[in-house]
Amino acid sequence: MIPAVVIAKKRDREALTREEIDFMVTGYARGQIPDYQMSALAMAIYIQGMDAREIADLTDIMIASGTRLKRVSDRPRVDKHSTGGLGDKTSLILAPLLACCDLDVPMISGRGLGITGGTLDKLEAIPGFRCNLTDEESEKQLKEIGCFITGATDLLVPADKKLYALRDVTGTVPSIALITASIMSKKIAETLDALVLDVKCGSGAFLPTRDRAESLADSLISNGKRAGIATTALITDMNQPLGEMVGNACEVDESIRVLENSGPEDVRELTLELCARLLVATGKSHDSASARGMLSEHLSSGRAMERFERMVAHQGGDLSAPRPIAKTVLWRAPKSGYLASIDGQKFGQAIVVLGGGRAFAGQAIDFSVGLRMLARLGDRVTAGDELLHVYCDQEDKVAGAMDLISEAIHISDESPTAPSLWTEFAHGTR
Amino acid sequence: MIPAVVIAKKRDREALTREEIDFMVTGYARGQIPDYQMSALAMAIYIQGMDAREIADLTDIMIASGTRLKRVSDRPRVDKHSTGGLGDKTSLILAPLLACCDLDVPMISGRGLGITGGTLDKLEAIPGFRCNLTDEESEKQLKEIGCFITGATDLLVPADKKLYALRDVTGTVPSIALITASIMSKKIAETLDALVLDVKCGSGAFLPTRDRAESLADSLISNGKRAGIATTALITDMNQPLGEMVGNACEVDESIRVLENSGPEDVRELTLELCARLLVATGKSHDSASARGMLSEHLSSGRAMERFERMVAHQGGDLSAPRPIAKTVLWRAPKSGYLASIDGQKFGQAIVVLGGGRAFAGQAIDFSVGLRMLARLGDRVTAGDELLHVYCDQEDKVAGAMDLISEAIHISDESPTAPSLWTEFAHGTR
Repeated sequence: MIPAVVIAKKRDREALTREEIDFMVTGYARGQIPDYQMSALAMAIYIQGMDAREIADLTDIMIASGTRLKRVSDRPRVDKHSTGGLGDKTSLILAPLLACCDLDVPMISGRGLGITGGTLDKLEAIPGFRCNLTDEESEKQLKEIGCFITGATDLLVPADKKLYALRDVTGTVPSIALITASIMSKKIAETLDALVLDVKCGSGAFLPTRDRAESLADSLISNGKRAGIATTALITDMNQPLGEMVGNACEVDESIRVLENSGPEDVRELTLELCARLLVATGKSHDSASARGMLSEHLSSGRAMERFERMVAHQGGDLSAPRPIAKTVLWRAPKSGYLASIDGQKFGQAIVVLGGGRAFAGQAIDFSVGLRMLARLGDRVTAGDELLHVYCDQEDKVAGAMDLISEAIHISDESPTAPSLWTEFAHGTR
Repeated sequence: MIPAVVIAKKRDREALTREEIDFMVTGYARGQIPDYQMSALAMAIYIQGMDAREIADLTDIMIASGTRLKRVSDRPRVDKHSTGGLGDKTSLILAPLLACCDLDVPMISGRGLGITGGTLDKLEAIPGFRCNLTDEESEKQLKEIGCFITGATDLLVPADKKLYALRDVTGTVPSIALITASIMSKKIAETLDALVLDVKCGSGAFLPTRDRAESLADSLISNGKRAGIATTALITDMNQPLGEMVGNACEVDESIRVLENSGPEDVRELTLELCARLLVATGKSHDSASARGMLSEHLSSGRAMERFERMVAHQGGDLSAPRPIAKTVLWRAPKSGYLASIDGQKFGQAIVVLGGGRAFAGQAIDFSVGLRMLARLGDRVTAGDELLHVYCDQEDKVAGAMDLISEAIHISDESPTAPSLWTEFAHGTR
């Protein structure tokens, strides 16, 4: 096979055979296909797309570049994946909560890039917390506690690691085909029985339109189902941050409040809904209502928090050690009216400017900075009201973030329709 | 500027600014933008296209990566560029013929790749012929003789050299935008007054359809005109080889026959038409008829041949030395009927199999091999007639070429319409 011929086929919108995909992707993972041919193919895939069969082949070929995680118990294995958004901290609550329900949650998570925060970065705001568990460590922890949240080892879908780094610098990230293969290769390699997908939609999501979010949800679900995983998806609102807190240490604090049976209602509500899906999918609950009953009980009894504490301790974290939160600067409503809309991209950039996110891969994170949003879309505000707390010790960064926030937040005379937190996604209707 | 952001803009079919193109292409030429970002951009440009302003900017930025050729006389400077086809040897005749008309012909030419032969490869079939003239050598020769045919120095559009090599291995060659910038950057860097384009169309051309050939002709003409060059184009037939000979040494022989006022009618006719365009464009002739009269006179008087001999001698070639032609094997018509069509791709692959063309850049060429086509499309043939002479000394290669020729040539019971050699291209009608 000649690489340029395979690339030209996709360029001309033809479907690639499994052998052709294998030739390019396995060859790339092994260093036989150079970056410049893979990036040309990635761009051709981005623009011309792939059908479900091609995406399934791509996913399987990427999985085969590494090894799969092993089952450690008879408990059903479940996980959740979010496409990323502002203040999305549900993983920290969901993993220990589901572990309380006799499920194994082998959660391989990632770091933040651009405006999207990363679960591993948030957890590392807990002094001592380790996100680089070996397979032996994570297997032992899963057996004993029923959950872990760690980064991918070099053996878990190495093709994705290499390809994602290339896509990041070649403008080929937001492709339905490539995202599906990237997400699902890692989730299938976790050897799951059930998976719930949280597909964010709105100004702070990387797929802002409902149509694109539905396409991705559809692609992810069919990919999971054909791999034998009970897969469902919610399309959830990302026109405003989830919860009040956006940052790292401050998001851990908010997650703990939810685990302690308080915290913002939207974080609790979305987490419970995602967990309920997995309880129903694995047969642990007959329906959503009984699932939610069980989950609420684990929160109110303190068992979920206790499981979180055990997980953190097992991964070297010290919850009793102080987590750094920078000093607070207020951002006040510049006029009266209704909180009409938030430009999620600009809002997210404010976090990056503060040092709480990454402009490029590998950048260090300042765990202590963040934003606290005191109003929700649709709220009536009066000029001078405190709308945001900015956590940051450096004045120049505060100034830059304030400018972005002022551009991001729109106050209007008319009352907007507040978005619903999540909507069911009915697979197969597209 | 961030490379991935520029790439994403083109990916989304937005026009790039001159600054963005400069950032990417000049950066690439200087080694600041890596291959993998340039190939992703090339694929995005291939699929999403560029408008005339973007192509003009790209062309100028590529030219600026090197130096332009200098004028050496008061004579108008002209050149011809062909998009490449089987048996296209007009350059060898055109350059000395126009030099006889008091024009300077500073012809920078290329090598063959795939089924397309290269003028430099053909000339190198003349023992001693040098295609690597320095700028000083080519300037001196142009001043004295009025023409040269040589390869690009490292200073002539180095960005194109690097980008073309990348496009060749990433499936991004046949893009109207990228071809236009590649061709026109080199022609504009020749500091021309007039340029005629020979855009091949048909089964042996890299743009097989009339529609694509017209798009390219249109793009080339507007690019030349905005650079102040009187630019015209012919769309010429490439459904069968030009002339009888396809190869290297055998094409030199055929060119010399035309220069000696004989040779195949189609080669002479196309060359005269291309030359006539340039004579009219530079005001050397009032109209095509008087131009053709002057050109015919230079051929019949022997002056064109004499000029060719001087050019070859100046470039180190020895026309009196024997040029290698391998032994002849016959290919006979397998049945009676009309010569209905020739698959130019397969026909061209036969030359590559014989060793007369390149499967990959840098491959050595066997000058002695080739094909001689004894019939033209539309001719009545009888089973057993000699239709082709195959020049090759190696039996295994002959067998491979024969198989391809048998697949390429179609004899039919019905008389086909013979294609016209060339058609005028009216710029601006698209």
